[in-house]
Amino acid sequence: MTNSVDAPDAAEYDVVVVGAGPVGENVADRARAAGLTTAVVENELIGGECSYWACMPSKALLRPVTARADARRVPGLRQAVRGPLDAAEVFAHRDSYASHWKDDGQVSWLESIGVDIHRGRGRLDGPRKVTVEAPSGERYTLTARHAVAVCTGSRAAVPDLPGVAGASPWTSREATSAGKAPDRLVVVGGGVVAVEMATAWQALGSRVTLLVRGNGLLARMEPFAGELVAEALTEAGATVRTGISVAAVERGEGGGPVTVILGGGERIEADEVLFATGRAPRTDDVGLDTVGLKPGSWLEVDESCRVKGQDWLYAVGDVNHRALMTHEGKYQARVAGAAIAARAHGEPLDTAPWGAHSATADHAAVPQVVFTDPEAASVGLTLAEAEATGRRVRAVDHDMASVSGAGLYADGYRGRARMVVDLDRETVLGVTFVGPGVAELLHSATVAVAGEVPIPRLWHAVPAYPTISEVWLRLLEAYRG
Amino acid sequence: MTNSVDAPDAAEYDVVVVGAGPVGENVADRARAAGLTTAVVENELIGGECSYWACMPSKALLRPVTARADARRVPGLRQAVRGPLDAAEVFAHRDSYASHWKDDGQVSWLESIGVDIHRGRGRLDGPRKVTVEAPSGERYTLTARHAVAVCTGSRAAVPDLPGVAGASPWTSREATSAGKAPDRLVVVGGGVVAVEMATAWQALGSRVTLLVRGNGLLARMEPFAGELVAEALTEAGATVRTGISVAAVERGEGGGPVTVILGGGERIEADEVLFATGRAPRTDDVGLDTVGLKPGSWLEVDESCRVKGQDWLYAVGDVNHRALMTHEGKYQARVAGAAIAARAHGEPLDTAPWGAHSATADHAAVPQVVFTDPEAASVGLTLAEAEATGRRVRAVDHDMASVSGAGLYADGYRGRARMVVDLDRETVLGVTFVGPGVAELLHSATVAVAGEVPIPRLWHAVPAYPTISEVWLRLLEAYRG
Repeated sequence: MTNSVDAPDAAEYDVVVVGAGPVGENVADRARAAGLTTAVVENELIGGECSYWACMPSKALLRPVTARADARRVPGLRQAVRGPLDAAEVFAHRDSYASHWKDDGQVSWLESIGVDIHRGRGRLDGPRKVTVEAPSGERYTLTARHAVAVCTGSRAAVPDLPGVAGASPWTSREATSAGKAPDRLVVVGGGVVAVEMATAWQALGSRVTLLVRGNGLLARMEPFAGELVAEALTEAGATVRTGISVAAVERGEGGGPVTVILGGGERIEADEVLFATGRAPRTDDVGLDTVGLKPGSWLEVDESCRVKGQDWLYAVGDVNHRALMTHEGKYQARVAGAAIAARAHGEPLDTAPWGAHSATADHAAVPQVVFTDPEAASVGLTLAEAEATGRRVRAVDHDMASVSGAGLYADGYRGRARMVVDLDRETVLGVTFVGPGVAELLHSATVAVAGEVPIPRLWHAVPAYPTISEVWLRLLEAYRG
Repeated sequence: MTNSVDAPDAAEYDVVVVGAGPVGENVADRARAAGLTTAVVENELIGGECSYWACMPSKALLRPVTARADARRVPGLRQAVRGPLDAAEVFAHRDSYASHWKDDGQVSWLESIGVDIHRGRGRLDGPRKVTVEAPSGERYTLTARHAVAVCTGSRAAVPDLPGVAGASPWTSREATSAGKAPDRLVVVGGGVVAVEMATAWQALGSRVTLLVRGNGLLARMEPFAGELVAEALTEAGATVRTGISVAAVERGEGGGPVTVILGGGERIEADEVLFATGRAPRTDDVGLDTVGLKPGSWLEVDESCRVKGQDWLYAVGDVNHRALMTHEGKYQARVAGAAIAARAHGEPLDTAPWGAHSATADHAAVPQVVFTDPEAASVGLTLAEAEATGRRVRAVDHDMASVSGAGLYADGYRGRARMVVDLDRETVLGVTFVGPGVAELLHSATVAVAGEVPIPRLWHAVPAYPTISEVWLRLLEAYRG
């Protein structure tokens, strides 16, 4: 049986989901699990940005880099790990993790759970209506009895500078899918995509120059995260320049090198330029105007991800601008899917903080791992964010080099940890770990923050010795003073 | 200033600690921090088993093995990591992590916090009295106004089989400190020391044969832990034999090979034999008889680690047989030190479960990481243990190979996870992860178990994508059904 639907004149479902990336897929999954008939509408690959041009391929490019860095820090092993990465093998593995940009696997999964797939562009057409423009040009309308969820995500926002349009710059899509390392790569930006792709391509053979507008990298994290990552990128051979504005880009019509022109007039020649300068909502062509909303805007939602002022419309994932990360979008999808189902069945909702129908973690406990060397991982509020809430807070720091398990993990370990504590409630508001091998350590902090586990109880959460996790003990000791 | 004390005729302290391994050091640290005068008595190296013959050197031997195994599973890197480990470099690093079996660093630390060090054998001599027998043979007595803490730990328990005494078998001490790989090594036992040392020495050049009495390895963990570790040891070239009883050992007087004779008569020749067959308390020569206790026994304690029936005597760490691990002993030391201080100052104690003076985690949330390839990590109760408590429980399992972050961490990832849930309270009683790279993931489970974070709240602890931590989401989904 196939659920891929050939343009009917019209069809009616309980729930229609526009956009079938991981977020839309999860909304559909939850709706189906609750017994609601469900369709997704997608005009690109089922599986979305994450599967083909973000998390999956980027991590496949980055894992060899961090694994090699880790191995080179282990006495007895480091001498055996001298050579360069086998870039061809890395690309082949990346291609396989991106499913060779084919979505058969995702289609099969949706079919297996009974979700109908409509290929084409989906646009709202007034309340509870979605028109589908199929690749053939044919148009038809879907009616949603209970809910429409817009899950169209975001796209790279490339600044409208002179020459950019004609210079074919890389965005996150090209940076994660390219099959050859440019000799010289300029990366514009200092956020997650910028530092991850700078790390990957520098290791894969490019000479990378990172041009950052602000004072440092990873501006949304604690300041030491960007500092440690910048230090390591520099040691890896990349050039990191901060306080830089890009004024224009030039590339000849026949291709060839690209020139990035800085605000002061300086010209930097490269083979490719990657703009990693933020995201824009993919809401400019989904019919928002037909329901009184502004095309191209981020969609404001309540805690159940329902669009304010519309009792049938949900915006889930990047489009609502709450937390632009795949895992957070999937979390919202679970919450929104449950809320759609509860409302459809006339059941009461639990929208209290941390309730089943409230995406509370979006404000309080968003985890993020930056897969650079060192890894940078954080959850919850930074010290600055916590102070801005007006709470009485205190941050304690620890140099991770002094943790036995860290030193045993990597000789000459460099890293830092910070815990931000709510002094009145004695709970942890945020934690940041920066260092090799901290990616999996983060979830301990996520459980502590989302679980609101009190500090006195955390003393009973004993870290196994000798692991890097023992940094928790050091943070608790530092807090006790 | 030095606090190492030359045999006085007598001395009086608030607290006297017998045994200055990590546990005794931490009891002393907490007592000093509370303003109590404190002495430690130690007849070997300050820092104890963990620093010189257990955690530190064993992890230094094992990290290159797991790091190499991890690197060999990464496309683009694996071809670069073909050769053997540089054993000489591994041993040199291990020696450095064991501080070359010198305790100057630990002595300096105790001095810096104002703890007096008495070198020699400490023995109880009736209530609140400890005699010190200095290396010179001189004897003197220390009086403890408030408390004596026995923290003498445990030693390897070698079975009293024919020929064992004359065969100079390895115990954990030799296995962690040897400077040359025997060509053939027989390991007797199937617990943590046995599997870790089998893993290390097989990788460092020995042909290892593991002789296990029971049906499998790591019998205290979920069954799949031992199964996966046995599979990997076998693939690494070791021979794993279960259901084996060792009847005798033979080694010629002039040294040479050792022969291990099995119950059925079979003879296995090797260059060394390691007995990793459990631990015995080091309480046979600490004067227990002078206070009505049985020499050589494990010491039964209450939740504050105070010996039952003695209001001044504490037994902390391995000697109380609650949880024979360094980190758990240090945890007990923090609890006992706080209890000693509170009682000395006439302050009320909080010995309720999870209170400041109750080592509750010893029963409910003991974490353990076995640093083999794959790593095996667990906290809290196994399914069998949970069922034995009479609670209504349910275990959910997940094949970690299907977690995206696991597959990206290691190509061909093999691993398994189990979560044991208390169905009435909807809390997690125990978690086991087995697979590459799970050592740091364990602490998330330790926080969940010790924090008694309810399952509905754990849904808000979002794992960062794509990390191995996403196995949490799969476990929660499996529980939801």
